[in-house]
Amino acid sequence: MALDPQNTQRYRITISCPDKVGIVAAVTQFISEYNGWISEAHQFADAESCSFFMRYEVVADSLPFGLEELKEKFAPVADKFQMNWNITDSAARKRVVLMVSKEAHALSDLLYRWSAGELNIDIPCVISNHDKLRSYVEWHGIPFIHVPVDMSNKEPHFQAVREQIAAADADAIVLAKYMQIIPEELCEVYPNKIINIHHSFLPSFIGARPYHQAAERGVKQIGATCHYVTSELDGGPIIEQDVQRVTHHNSTQDMVRLGKDVEKAVLARGLRYHIEDRVLVYGNKTVVFA
Amino acid sequence: MALDPQNTQRYRITISCPDKVGIVAAVTQFISEYNGWISEAHQFADAESCSFFMRYEVVADSLPFGLEELKEKFAPVADKFQMNWNITDSAARKRVVLMVSKEAHALSDLLYRWSAGELNIDIPCVISNHDKLRSYVEWHGIPFIHVPVDMSNKEPHFQAVREQIAAADADAIVLAKYMQIIPEELCEVYPNKIINIHHSFLPSFIGARPYHQAAERGVKQIGATCHYVTSELDGGPIIEQDVQRVTHHNSTQDMVRLGKDVEKAVLARGLRYHIEDRVLVYGNKTVVFA
Amino acid sequence: MALDPQNTQRYRITISCPDKVGIVAAVTQFISEYNGWISEAHQFADAESCSFFMRYEVVADSLPFGLEELKEKFAPVADKFQMNWNITDSAARKRVVLMVSKEAHALSDLLYRWSAGELNIDIPCVISNHDKLRSYVEWHGIPFIHVPVDMSNKEPHFQAVREQIAAADADAIVLAKYMQIIPEELCEVYPNKIINIHHSFLPSFIGARPYHQAAERGVKQIGATCHYVTSELDGGPIIEQDVQRVTHHNSTQDMVRLGKDVEKAVLARGLRYHIEDRVLVYGNKTVVFA
Amino acid sequence: MALDPQNTQRYRITISCPDKVGIVAAVTQFISEYNGWISEAHQFADAESCSFFMRYEVVADSLPFGLEELKEKFAPVADKFQMNWNITDSAARKRVVLMVSKEAHALSDLLYRWSAGELNIDIPCVISNHDKLRSYVEWHGIPFIHVPVDMSNKEPHFQAVREQIAAADADAIVLAKYMQIIPEELCEVYPNKIINIHHSFLPSFIGARPYHQAAERGVKQIGATCHYVTSELDGGPIIEQDVQRVTHHNSTQDMVRLGKDVEKAVLARGLRYHIEDRVLVYGNKTVVFA
Repeated sequence: MALDPQNTQRYRITISCPDKVGIVAAVTQFISEYNGWISEAHQFADAESCSFFMRYEVVADSLPFGLEELKEKFAPVADKFQMNWNITDSAARKRVVLMVSKEAHALSDLLYRWSAGELNIDIPCVISNHDKLRSYVEWHGIPFIHVPVDMSNKEPHFQAVREQIAAADADAIVLAKYMQIIPEELCEVYPNKIINIHHSFLPSFIGARPYHQAAERGVKQIGATCHYVTSELDGGPIIEQDVQRVTHHNSTQDMVRLGKDVEKAVLARGLRYHIEDRVLVYGNKTVVFA
Repeated sequence: MALDPQNTQRYRITISCPDKVGIVAAVTQFISEYNGWISEAHQFADAESCSFFMRYEVVADSLPFGLEELKEKFAPVADKFQMNWNITDSAARKRVVLMVSKEAHALSDLLYRWSAGELNIDIPCVISNHDKLRSYVEWHGIPFIHVPVDMSNKEPHFQAVREQIAAADADAIVLAKYMQIIPEELCEVYPNKIINIHHSFLPSFIGARPYHQAAERGVKQIGATCHYVTSELDGGPIIEQDVQRVTHHNSTQDMVRLGKDVEKAVLARGLRYHIEDRVLVYGNKTVVFA
Repeated sequence: MALDPQNTQRYRITISCPDKVGIVAAVTQFISEYNGWISEAHQFADAESCSFFMRYEVVADSLPFGLEELKEKFAPVADKFQMNWNITDSAARKRVVLMVSKEAHALSDLLYRWSAGELNIDIPCVISNHDKLRSYVEWHGIPFIHVPVDMSNKEPHFQAVREQIAAADADAIVLAKYMQIIPEELCEVYPNKIINIHHSFLPSFIGARPYHQAAERGVKQIGATCHYVTSELDGGPIIEQDVQRVTHHNSTQDMVRLGKDVEKAVLARGLRYHIEDRVLVYGNKTVVFA
Repeated sequence: MALDPQNTQRYRITISCPDKVGIVAAVTQFISEYNGWISEAHQFADAESCSFFMRYEVVADSLPFGLEELKEKFAPVADKFQMNWNITDSAARKRVVLMVSKEAHALSDLLYRWSAGELNIDIPCVISNHDKLRSYVEWHGIPFIHVPVDMSNKEPHFQAVREQIAAADADAIVLAKYMQIIPEELCEVYPNKIINIHHSFLPSFIGARPYHQAAERGVKQIGATCHYVTSELDGGPIIEQDVQRVTHHNSTQDMVRLGKDVEKAVLARGLRYHIEDRVLVYGNKTVVFA
């Protein structure tokens, strides 16, 4: 039996719990009891908070039962160690709603990856407060939903957005340069499921026009940050970051252009981690089993 | 006549002035009139502030006169374009005072580079508020001056430091992890001559314990910043920055260790730019003709 | 008169010649005589080969004449110093033919940049030996030309390709993962105009299946190289390179995926340098005035 | 009981074996049976070769016995799965012999790290074919052994070197710019224990004067490679690599200088991995559990 790391169906077990002797033994004992084939394994013990995190992948065909029975049988093990846990099926493509405004770089990058099979997701729809990117999205065979925003009263916009997300049965919402602040209530409906790409190396340059702030401060590298959205502006758990060197030759306009490349790369990596269940949030931080 | 880019004596002309037609023509016309050989040339026009910056290197032997006469002859050209200007001699090694506390990584890196001939400077002395690094410094044949600091009254310390720097006739003062805030008066005596290495990617994590702040915020890269010291804490013009990837596996202790590598690399590059007269300050920013 | 660095029309003067005293003076004297506004300037003297290279941008509106008269007037200066030289107009968009096979990553990236106005070029057509990417290209309003290749006799294919390129009046031909070796004759028709992206950090892993070679050798970083195509396979002058870290966790399949991101980034940068006339070739090397 | 990740004594279990169901379960079951506290865990299944690798750290105090009894008790588990295995004690500092020639950058970097407690090793001696670095080494309190080499007959040199290494009871030999090719016989005495830093991004520029080769080829990044020494020149398993951007402005001399920074960083990282038993060799490749 040969393992195709890309295509073999696997169950992904993710666990957070208080650190304690015997967790890994119990979990692996459980898996090996049913002859499960562990194809990938990560674990991490945070010495400060005495928390323990793990993510195991088990080849689905190696087990004598399916996802539901696996969950049932695993529950007692989980209970014993007070685990926050989940088991997902790699074959169940996550449903990811994209939200955009007028800029196409992040959207275009994600749609390429999706169409090339690099991102194993379904995109039920793209939601935008502008109609500009409709044709491009629709060429890909994806529904484009234009939800205009009235700047003097944004509530109806977000109400409609919320309904569309619910209707799409979304596992994740990606703000691919959506450029609107998500209201607190919506953040709370989807904790650790709304993914934003911020165009600065957070916590530097929070808020608007970060490249202008960066140019003003004269930094020698600009960056981008992929993070979960919480009610604190640009303050949620960071999933991924990267930077790009700039010099005095680079105008603010150049920074915007150069920054776009970092933004889309960082967002694509962050989203990949998320849909592969590699991100575990604790406190305001993340463990990323990349 | 062959040029040895490392060792050939050169005059370095640095200029800042309002942007205007004819500056480069006038400067190069002047140089070529005396048959000067331009071995390196950089220029930059800042569109926003309408400022112009240039740095030219001319092979000393190609000119029929020395530094003083060069300056005299150049003055009328400079006047015509209202230049802030300077001409330095690559053969005149800059005098750089190092200030340290107890941590040796930046000091050790700089002393290696100095002893290997990588940094073309004289080090008249190392000043420290601790006696810990005396033997290491003295092995290199460099005077070590211990100036203890009374935490309840730092004034005498800084008075003594100031006298030592003056006695050393320093062209630059490098805070190689000196860990004390320089008083405003001292900053003002040496504008754009006191170089600090800050252990964060400024403007993130200003002030104390930046690695602890970084760990707390859960960033995915840590950094270091080399900047000129002004009276605003960690707010002076940035010369150079770099970053280093970290993961959840890295404890704050790890970050401190990993950060040291970035700190010393960034400081060494920043100092090199400074001693080669490659850094031109404007506003709170720098042009670095690297 | 304010300079918009992105949109202002400029003339780009590029020069290679034997190094000698007075070149820059002569050029800048010439420009300032006509009140020309130099908006960007780079120069480089190669000490080894005693060659001199420069690239100046002059704001078009600052001169009292147009491109043709500028060239005419500049010719005597150029002659005096035996210059290889050229002057181009930033407003004259270069015509760039893209050649692809079946993989869309580089194409998709370039088309995004083109449509977003990041790449100031015209794309007269996309030529492919497969029909797979037709619809995507045509959605962008760009003609797609399918020229099948008979693997037992490639000559007719290349004859047809050659005619299409000629008909397109191409300033540059980009092999955006074209995956066919260009015959020597075609290389010679377009010296320093055919740009390839090779999926390794050349000169490592020349030829086919570089990621498999990289996996076999167990390297810790993979890379990509953008270079001009010459008759020597993967041996032409390198324009740009970059790398991406990999670990034992990354299968060859992963490397292919990760490598695509480096490939498209490196190609986009290399192409930008080319169309902005920033690349000067000497020997088998390049000067890139980035 | 709080874990100090830096200083807590731990046992490091490293395992390579054919991949099979139940390995992790057996190992962790064994550890938990004795109440062992797993402080770090890595594993990797290579799908191609069906090999399995793991590295576990167990807090020493959490076990009711010491290293020898741990090994004894573990042996049956290991036998069952045909493991190549080892258990080391983090408190047993590895004995690392450094070999140098005349260049001090790598040596200086390692000695700083050693003296600052960053590298948890003993350095029984530094061996050199030159006497140049004696005083610097001896200042650190480390014996310096000068073993001159007769270029017309290197055998006596290597015989003496071999004896010194044996006398030093070395766990690892670091060629910190030793610049001599190690004879095959010596390689075979210390398989995967002789660590070299090569000044190129292997497999590019094998052999002598790699920076000259790099300058000749016109690459845009230079690199360094830390690898185990085998009888094939520059062909052993790669532990770590990194690169540094260069431009046309950088002469070969500059590349040598810039390259030194990459060399010492890469060597320091590679050595750290080695002494912490994080490197598992298979075929001509490495798994590095960093």
